[in-house]
Amino acid sequence: MFVIEPISPKVDDDIQHKINQKTKPLGALGQLESLALQIARVQHSGNQHLLSTPLQIKKPTMLVFAADHGIAAFGVSIAPSEVTIQMVQNFVQGGAAINVFCRQVGFELEIIDCGILQPLTDQAKVIDQRLGAGTNAMHLTAAMSLEKVALGFELARQLVSRHVDAGCNIIALGEMGIGNTSAATAVMSAMLNINVEQCVGRGTGIDDATLVIKTKLINQALDLHQHELVSPEAILAHVGGFEIVQMTGAILAAAEQKILVLIDGFIATAAALVAVTLFPQARDYLVFAHESQEQGHKLLLKQLQATPLLSLGLRLGEGTGAALALPLIHAAVNFYNQMASFDDAGVNNVV
Amino acid sequence: MFVIEPISPKVDDDIQHKINQKTKPLGALGQLESLALQIARVQHSGNQHLLSTPLQIKKPTMLVFAADHGIAAFGVSIAPSEVTIQMVQNFVQGGAAINVFCRQVGFELEIIDCGILQPLTDQAKVIDQRLGAGTNAMHLTAAMSLEKVALGFELARQLVSRHVDAGCNIIALGEMGIGNTSAATAVMSAMLNINVEQCVGRGTGIDDATLVIKTKLINQALDLHQHELVSPEAILAHVGGFEIVQMTGAILAAAEQKILVLIDGFIATAAALVAVTLFPQARDYLVFAHESQEQGHKLLLKQLQATPLLSLGLRLGEGTGAALALPLIHAAVNFYNQMASFDDAGVNNVV
Repeated sequence: MFVIEPISPKVDDDIQHKINQKTKPLGALGQLESLALQIARVQHSGNQHLLSTPLQIKKPTMLVFAADHGIAAFGVSIAPSEVTIQMVQNFVQGGAAINVFCRQVGFELEIIDCGILQPLTDQAKVIDQRLGAGTNAMHLTAAMSLEKVALGFELARQLVSRHVDAGCNIIALGEMGIGNTSAATAVMSAMLNINVEQCVGRGTGIDDATLVIKTKLINQALDLHQHELVSPEAILAHVGGFEIVQMTGAILAAAEQKILVLIDGFIATAAALVAVTLFPQARDYLVFAHESQEQGHKLLLKQLQATPLLSLGLRLGEGTGAALALPLIHAAVNFYNQMASFDDAGVNNVV
Repeated sequence: MFVIEPISPKVDDDIQHKINQKTKPLGALGQLESLALQIARVQHSGNQHLLSTPLQIKKPTMLVFAADHGIAAFGVSIAPSEVTIQMVQNFVQGGAAINVFCRQVGFELEIIDCGILQPLTDQAKVIDQRLGAGTNAMHLTAAMSLEKVALGFELARQLVSRHVDAGCNIIALGEMGIGNTSAATAVMSAMLNINVEQCVGRGTGIDDATLVIKTKLINQALDLHQHELVSPEAILAHVGGFEIVQMTGAILAAAEQKILVLIDGFIATAAALVAVTLFPQARDYLVFAHESQEQGHKLLLKQLQATPLLSLGLRLGEGTGAALALPLIHAAVNFYNQMASFDDAGVNNVV
């Protein structure tokens, strides 16, 4: 399994002092200050001699995990499962929102086929980490086996390792998969042991009638598997999704490698909940990008004590919220590295 | 005075249709969609034949207006007035937060001396638009004359014209001036005819005792001038500030020139309130960047029917919120210009 070290708090005070000496009133850069503190904690890992090293954002990489969901055939979404592969093709051709935003902010974009219904004709353009041709319909049988969960973790770990070996020190997680808010809702409900009604939402925009079906089928899945949901891995196997499994693995792999992970919306946050439940020390490496409109997302974020950087009313997924947050990560790094101190600038320190 | 044309709604439906045909669920890009609509309305100005022209962000320019305030000598701030010139020198040397963020996001930064206590030794590095050596203490006498308000408007208009002539099509407004939240609070209270207590806040972080003094002196100023506060210009003259006057002028000049204006925090929003009261049609050109922690700011934004793009807990001013919002402006422009439509991408349009 993963080996994840907690971050030593040994140089936290030094980092905070450096932030406080910048030419601004104490705390006046708000969330960017806590973000800079977090990044410095990750990159200095408690080492005094690293304090003078500038913070760095190297080869930021957006990993978009795509998969299909058996439950999608039962009327839980505005779109049929075939839209998953169509959108993956759109990603490959560069025409989707995530392509536009990654190009703009400087994310390298990688698409991972975790198990869409059929592989792409030109599978060379995506990373093949298929765990199957979509999950089973979770309200009828387990979404996947426990072995597939373990395999998904391992594939994600290798993927992250390759990027870290190539010099990447921040990854972001996005997803595409018709039906995946149903799986994420089921995972959340099972993990937190709260009612589906508190977790479920409209995904990309379903109507009232579809919401009723979605809620009913998720409840049916959780009832069916109630005696099997004995661990985070078992929850992923019974009511998860191939992309949710691999996102969980990617988060743990990034924490193991001590790099930052930028978490997008509801689906990625559900994966983060599983990851942090398995390894609480992974939390230190996570930055939350965007608060989506899914009602369950606020609750998940609260559980993870997370305050996202953006709240733009996005409900698209794909990693779009995480992509849009990268400039704020740069801003935190840049003020920490570049701003003058009161002494440097000859400004009265009145704070 | 300014001549500001309202934007024709003639091609609004065409713009919205284009946004709706992008490969995403209807409305799934949230605030970025309303932002793209606004930018397209400004740049297409109701002309059918401009619809196929890509949106453009050209030479984005951050104008930081600096000035001193007579009231600052009476204990309303954490810092003495001399910090204004020290911070302006910090801007000139490139060490402040606004320098860091402008370099990062691609804003050209220009510092305008609207009337700090003393001019810089090397005044060549700032634009000299001085209206005096700080305003008068507004609780004792009028902050400035009506002639200075008119002169400030005209200087700001010329400044904006020069930038538009050089190819700029978006300006952002920031400020520096110890004591300027007191002036902005007085302007807001007088403009909206509401209690100072509902408008006043802690600026960059004053304590309870200072807040009591600040509130008392603002009330004293408004009482002293109550019979003179008969127009937006008169309010600026009696309780405004040199930078607030010039920001108001810059907003109106930008609207006159039909370019976008990115409004930063509380001070800039107070200027926007004055501008929009004088010319309601100027509102179409304004994008609000950041919701600051000043309690009055929420109220001002509500009055202007504005939903800012960011809410990061910044309370620094300088234009920092506006600088950090520029990547979101680019994101709106880029998705509008670059995203594939359902037809382009062969994706089922299920919306």
